[in-house]
Amino acid sequence: MAVTYRQAGVDIDLATTLIERIKPLAAKTRTPHVLEGIGGFAGLCSLPTGLEEPILVSGTDGVGTKLKVAFAMNKHDTIGQDLVAMCVNDVITTGAVPLFFLDYFGTGKLSADVGAAVIGGIADGCQLAGCALLGGETAELPGMYADGEYDLAGFSVGIVDKKALLGPARVRPTDELIAVASTGLHSNGYSLARRVIEKELGLSLDQHVEALGATVGEVLLRPTRIYARTVQALGRTLGPDLHALCHVTGGGLPENLPRVLPDGVDAIVDGARPWTPIFRLIAEGGPVELAEMRRTFNLGIGLIVVVEAAAVPQALDALAAAGEDAWRLGHLAEAAGPALVRYVHDPEGQRA
Amino acid sequence: MAVTYRQAGVDIDLATTLIERIKPLAAKTRTPHVLEGIGGFAGLCSLPTGLEEPILVSGTDGVGTKLKVAFAMNKHDTIGQDLVAMCVNDVITTGAVPLFFLDYFGTGKLSADVGAAVIGGIADGCQLAGCALLGGETAELPGMYADGEYDLAGFSVGIVDKKALLGPARVRPTDELIAVASTGLHSNGYSLARRVIEKELGLSLDQHVEALGATVGEVLLRPTRIYARTVQALGRTLGPDLHALCHVTGGGLPENLPRVLPDGVDAIVDGARPWTPIFRLIAEGGPVELAEMRRTFNLGIGLIVVVEAAAVPQALDALAAAGEDAWRLGHLAEAAGPALVRYVHDPEGQRA
Repeated sequence: MAVTYRQAGVDIDLATTLIERIKPLAAKTRTPHVLEGIGGFAGLCSLPTGLEEPILVSGTDGVGTKLKVAFAMNKHDTIGQDLVAMCVNDVITTGAVPLFFLDYFGTGKLSADVGAAVIGGIADGCQLAGCALLGGETAELPGMYADGEYDLAGFSVGIVDKKALLGPARVRPTDELIAVASTGLHSNGYSLARRVIEKELGLSLDQHVEALGATVGEVLLRPTRIYARTVQALGRTLGPDLHALCHVTGGGLPENLPRVLPDGVDAIVDGARPWTPIFRLIAEGGPVELAEMRRTFNLGIGLIVVVEAAAVPQALDALAAAGEDAWRLGHLAEAAGPALVRYVHDPEGQRA
Repeated sequence: MAVTYRQAGVDIDLATTLIERIKPLAAKTRTPHVLEGIGGFAGLCSLPTGLEEPILVSGTDGVGTKLKVAFAMNKHDTIGQDLVAMCVNDVITTGAVPLFFLDYFGTGKLSADVGAAVIGGIADGCQLAGCALLGGETAELPGMYADGEYDLAGFSVGIVDKKALLGPARVRPTDELIAVASTGLHSNGYSLARRVIEKELGLSLDQHVEALGATVGEVLLRPTRIYARTVQALGRTLGPDLHALCHVTGGGLPENLPRVLPDGVDAIVDGARPWTPIFRLIAEGGPVELAEMRRTFNLGIGLIVVVEAAAVPQALDALAAAGEDAWRLGHLAEAAGPALVRYVHDPEGQRA
């Protein structure tokens, strides 16, 4: 009896079914820049006009073991927003506007329902970010993933005029720092969070925790906030007074904030808020030491905005108008050597 | 005792070590378009000048279960070339020049040696393709992958002037088809190939097979050929006589060739060569039926060039000069309805 590809674990017809279900999802994200019906093998996208010296900005990321929470809860329709967020929030730190996004979905045995839910979430994320879902790869790899599991990788491209690039070159030691709230863990630190919550605290994902006001699973799976439209509104309001943006991702504030600061400038954090309950639960449940908490989690801050000191009130107004919970986090100061983060008044640090 | 991220299975210091080893590999691939030392969170790339209406072309892909062959042979320094090839060979079918590439490397427990070998292969692939390795993500996901295993996703962006776009709109029913040889299976059909070779034939990867002139593993792991420089040379030689390019990937010739043909045009394959030994081994070893072989494997043809009939000799000369093994594969013909592939003289088809 002849052997077929399907018997070897790869079902091309099922993949075709999934592609048919993805098409309308991707169509929702279409922008005027997308060229249709030309590229049979690749996605095509034109450039916005009017840029003097256009620079492409590109980033790739995954969502780490937040995936394990989605698997355990059998809820697959928001992890795609996390994937878009992790990539797009990196790209926009340069001042770039996201143009398009592509996804890689790798699994052992394809389920069209799970695949469509995941990619539906990706399309939702693309809409929130204002970018087109230009392409993707669905890979069925028999024997590579446990049953019902998958991995995701995302890739985003944005564009910015060279003269509008944000970053260390614009930052001055008199600048101020503004924190923009995260929605929770976003997509970092899940291996440690799950270790503490499941092993040390023995909590199950469907357990309601008074301090969280929700089940553990609901809080852990809350989608990563996408700051693309907020940052564009902020740029329009502040113009050249917007100097740099820091996406608080793996490595936390101490490892990410210095990436947007020039040498000879330190960040003085004197406006830290108490952590939100999920971070306190993890810190106390481990216990996890303060330094480890700081370099693993965003601790409630998803984005840090570096602005001209005089523009702080205007920036806070613009952020509030964009629907963000934002507050003054601290200021910069001249210092010797590479940029460092110093905590001055941190309610958690003083407790520790 | 306090819990750390490392105890939870994520070693940030090891990731930092790997990043230090990746830096010189990525530096080898730098092009004049890459902007250094600006983007802390994303890769930055300028555009070539002189394009009237620049179009970005983007593709994403993985290498499927060819990974399993790399794992079994514990040889990780060429699978990265496969990853670049699968993405770049898609992008160039539009006529685009590859600009940059990003990779996602997901694993359960990071090995800096394996990671550096894989990313070294990616950098080699980028050099072959003439594009910059602009960024990447190394994700350590405890519990997601079996020991020593990993998955890879690649993303590539190229650029083309709109007036130079290749594809169905340029193709005429009087055009001819030229086949460009593959180096083997490239990165498609490995689940079926391994099923036949390991299960039906009971061959081990280190077994030397007379008909192959090599071990099974050597043939299966042979890197995917990257056609980027060849296609650029071909474009320079043929100009507007180059009409379309087909990357023979998953789905084989019958599913890929119609993607670059307009409705009302069929492809008549009357110049098929006998298959190379690895494909005959699989077909006979399964046995695998002819139609299944055709829609699963490239069967020795990695790329198909669609050209103006009068330009065939010139195209064959240019391909030979670029180091390719190429031959006239067939021609197009007017037909009713969507494009189809018809085999007229196929040595394998006549045997079947």
